[in-house]
Amino acid sequence: MAHIELPEGVPGIGGPLRAYPETAQHLLALAQTLLRSTVSLTPGERETIATFTSSRNDCNFCRRSHEAAARHLLIAEGDAEARKTLELVCADPESAPVSEKMKALLAIAAGVQTGGRGCVSDEAVARARGAGADDRAIHDTVLIAAAFCMYNRYVDGLATLSPTDDALYDQMGMALAEHGYARG
Amino acid sequence: MAHIELPEGVPGIGGPLRAYPETAQHLLALAQTLLRSTVSLTPGERETIATFTSSRNDCNFCRRSHEAAARHLLIAEGDAEARKTLELVCADPESAPVSEKMKALLAIAAGVQTGGRGCVSDEAVARARGAGADDRAIHDTVLIAAAFCMYNRYVDGLATLSPTDDALYDQMGMALAEHGYARG
Repeated sequence: MAHIELPEGVPGIGGPLRAYPETAQHLLALAQTLLRSTVSLTPGERETIATFTSSRNDCNFCRRSHEAAARHLLIAEGDAEARKTLELVCADPESAPVSEKMKALLAIAAGVQTGGRGCVSDEAVARARGAGADDRAIHDTVLIAAAFCMYNRYVDGLATLSPTDDALYDQMGMALAEHGYARG
Repeated sequence: MAHIELPEGVPGIGGPLRAYPETAQHLLALAQTLLRSTVSLTPGERETIATFTSSRNDCNFCRRSHEAAARHLLIAEGDAEARKTLELVCADPESAPVSEKMKALLAIAAGVQTGGRGCVSDEAVARARGAGADDRAIHDTVLIAAAFCMYNRYVDGLATLSPTDDALYDQMGMALAEHGYARG
């Protein structure tokens, strides 16, 4: 049971978003801006960083819902093996079948997830630039990873409902891939 | 030097907020909503939770700027010894001169800062309710602590400018206490 009264049966972050609309509007607008921009990173790459960070934070609901969103987006972007790609990214980004640029950005995201001054080294940034990442890609990677350190804690800190049903996550992921985070 | 090009001489989160206005508007609106609401918690109490979380995340810029904001607000709310109170809260909330409700909420914030499923126990929530915290106070405490796990990582993940001058933080804190986070 969640730590506060939330609409019954609504999984994960959906509960507190519905119950607390004043903060929800900003949380959703931030997600939409960060995860659906096409500048310097594709939406599929952005959702991959979100999935990876949620996996590091051991947030089951966020990992599975954003994995499904990333999967649908990456398939549309041309990665027919997206399910496998995402599994390998979460297990070990360095050996996953993603670009050198993505490997370098995932290493930056791992640093941000750990947190603290110096969590992202000059070397990690130089590596990302060498692989083609510009300021915007580095900025957005840092903020996506930081934002999921918030969303993950919001979901788990309130002990929200964390379903186990694969089909439900797939359905959520498809809706997120198609419609994004704008309020319906 | 910061990891990406930012406006020169602008301290902390101010740099990326100015350089990336699309995300800034949502980050600022979230801070304004969370930290200036007067429902269930005072602005001074909200900034105290922000300061405590930033201290736990070892984010110098956020700790000092929000400490100054909390100090000015708490003084206005009647705590003439606010500077000492905040110092003691960061050192050990359980022995700090704050209400039992605030002690219980700071224990919840400490759990959220750690993160992970189960980071906030049923006992911690029961303790807060017993001390007079309602759903809204618990929700907002979790989200303030979670949000500062984001803001702190945004500031340190980009290696933004972290000034050492006390007077500058005091000035920022006074402006935040008076005008909040609305864009000037």
